[in-house]
Amino acid sequence: MVTPALIGIDWGSTSLRAFLIGADGTVLQERTAGKGASTLHAHPAFVAALDEVAGAWQRAHPALPLLACGMVGSQHGWLDVPYVRAPAGAADLAAGLAQPADTALRIVPGVLYDDGVLPPDVMRGEETQVVGALAAYPQLADSCVVLPGTHSKWTHVSQGAIARFATHMTGELYAVLRQHSVLGRLMPPEVTPDADTFLAGVAAARDHGELGLPHQLFAVRSLGVTARLPNGALPEYLSGLLIGHELRAGLAWRAAQGLREQPLALVGAAALCERYQMALNHCGQPADLVLDNTAPAGLLALARAARLLS
Amino acid sequence: MVTPALIGIDWGSTSLRAFLIGADGTVLQERTAGKGASTLHAHPAFVAALDEVAGAWQRAHPALPLLACGMVGSQHGWLDVPYVRAPAGAADLAAGLAQPADTALRIVPGVLYDDGVLPPDVMRGEETQVVGALAAYPQLADSCVVLPGTHSKWTHVSQGAIARFATHMTGELYAVLRQHSVLGRLMPPEVTPDADTFLAGVAAARDHGELGLPHQLFAVRSLGVTARLPNGALPEYLSGLLIGHELRAGLAWRAAQGLREQPLALVGAAALCERYQMALNHCGQPADLVLDNTAPAGLLALARAARLLS
Repeated sequence: MVTPALIGIDWGSTSLRAFLIGADGTVLQERTAGKGASTLHAHPAFVAALDEVAGAWQRAHPALPLLACGMVGSQHGWLDVPYVRAPAGAADLAAGLAQPADTALRIVPGVLYDDGVLPPDVMRGEETQVVGALAAYPQLADSCVVLPGTHSKWTHVSQGAIARFATHMTGELYAVLRQHSVLGRLMPPEVTPDADTFLAGVAAARDHGELGLPHQLFAVRSLGVTARLPNGALPEYLSGLLIGHELRAGLAWRAAQGLREQPLALVGAAALCERYQMALNHCGQPADLVLDNTAPAGLLALARAARLLS
Repeated sequence: MVTPALIGIDWGSTSLRAFLIGADGTVLQERTAGKGASTLHAHPAFVAALDEVAGAWQRAHPALPLLACGMVGSQHGWLDVPYVRAPAGAADLAAGLAQPADTALRIVPGVLYDDGVLPPDVMRGEETQVVGALAAYPQLADSCVVLPGTHSKWTHVSQGAIARFATHMTGELYAVLRQHSVLGRLMPPEVTPDADTFLAGVAAARDHGELGLPHQLFAVRSLGVTARLPNGALPEYLSGLLIGHELRAGLAWRAAQGLREQPLALVGAAALCERYQMALNHCGQPADLVLDNTAPAGLLALARAARLLS
């Protein structure tokens, strides 16, 4: 049986996942709670939430280190942990760990990219997933790692460090437009899965994206109003358009970074990665690797780099 | 004194404006009511709203024709008036007027553009503004007419008819992102007017739009989080980015339509047109004409084309 080496916490704005992690990276146990960092407002609430998911493990293994990543380390989290500037590798992140007062928990810093020309970009949580992907797949040391989500991250990894990245608000645009815009009005509450319509949206962005997203989005309405698409298919077209625009820009960015010949990896929830892989295939550039949640592996690698492991 | 010739109604989703119009196009009187077409749900409610804004004029001038344009003619309006297909000139629109049962009111049809290749596009209300602009400025017979708004319309006018057009959801994106997305969270309720920040957003789209709108939008957050912009300026940056992306795509579309040497006109509310003109200037392609509301002139021209005037 594998001995526990670390209690790792993936603590985002809206969710909290705790992992009891073995020295070889095996996730021995997992617990979740709806105690996202943005739902908690003071030190005692964070202490209680941490105890809820990890207290029993702490009492059973009092010497285990605790390490968390994600929005728990933001302005509106438990402790505002200063960003580490890119390029940032595991050693840089390990050097930036911070600890809320009177706790055993350490928190991984986020990463700031700022070239002084374009607006800066920031990530919190994804840096740990990138470290985890690199720990498991050393061939990603020079690569493009894409983490799809509410705020997708396209990451240029160079010599094993996060050299640069770009955020795309794709998932949030989908949610906001569906719930609050005229585009959502024709849509039924449930999505009817429809790969063809999804890929039609991707193709519209791929082939005619120069017409602009603010224009192409209106097609979600005009295709519905003119009954060219059934209302139940409109969410899939919207999703395809938005992901298609992300890929159009992201793949051009990847090429501009000189990464066309380097591996392309998708890291994230399996269903979302499958959707992105379908879209990447439709653009003729499928990902070379598709990895599920790599946060536990990343937390272990960062704990090791910070010499927290016994 | 000018004799009234027409009661014209600009009846959109959220607003209702009535004009008593002279034979020379002069607006003799104007009345407004908060009785937008989307707020009314049955024939009697529309009858009552019409009487509220135009009943006194009807009783004073019983022979005057009544003509309305806008979403009052949509699926969710008073009467679903079938779209006229582009190319559509004043005569085509006049031939498509429709009349709700037991009323003196006629409603102008919207226009459908459908080339069978790209998704169709639709307008309702803007066709009348284009006709009004053409009536006042014959040099727009071959031109690009831009109507900024919630759903901006870029219109290719050829030989005095609406040949083709493209909708951009710019105004709605601004409202939805400000009210319902993470971008709005840092913003104070009031906008601090700030032309420099607005133009910085326009320039980001103009110079780096290939990075993609879903990416560039995230800068509204990262510029705030890193205190590169004061929170009060973030709405202006968002507005500049969105209008900048509309212009980037719209000006390329205009060029692709072969209209670079033809007049470019802005038609709409003065403050919004001024904002667009600033942005167009920043892109080196200012509009040749900026026109305030041309709906009354358009309604008069369509009433004349339909031989409704005595």
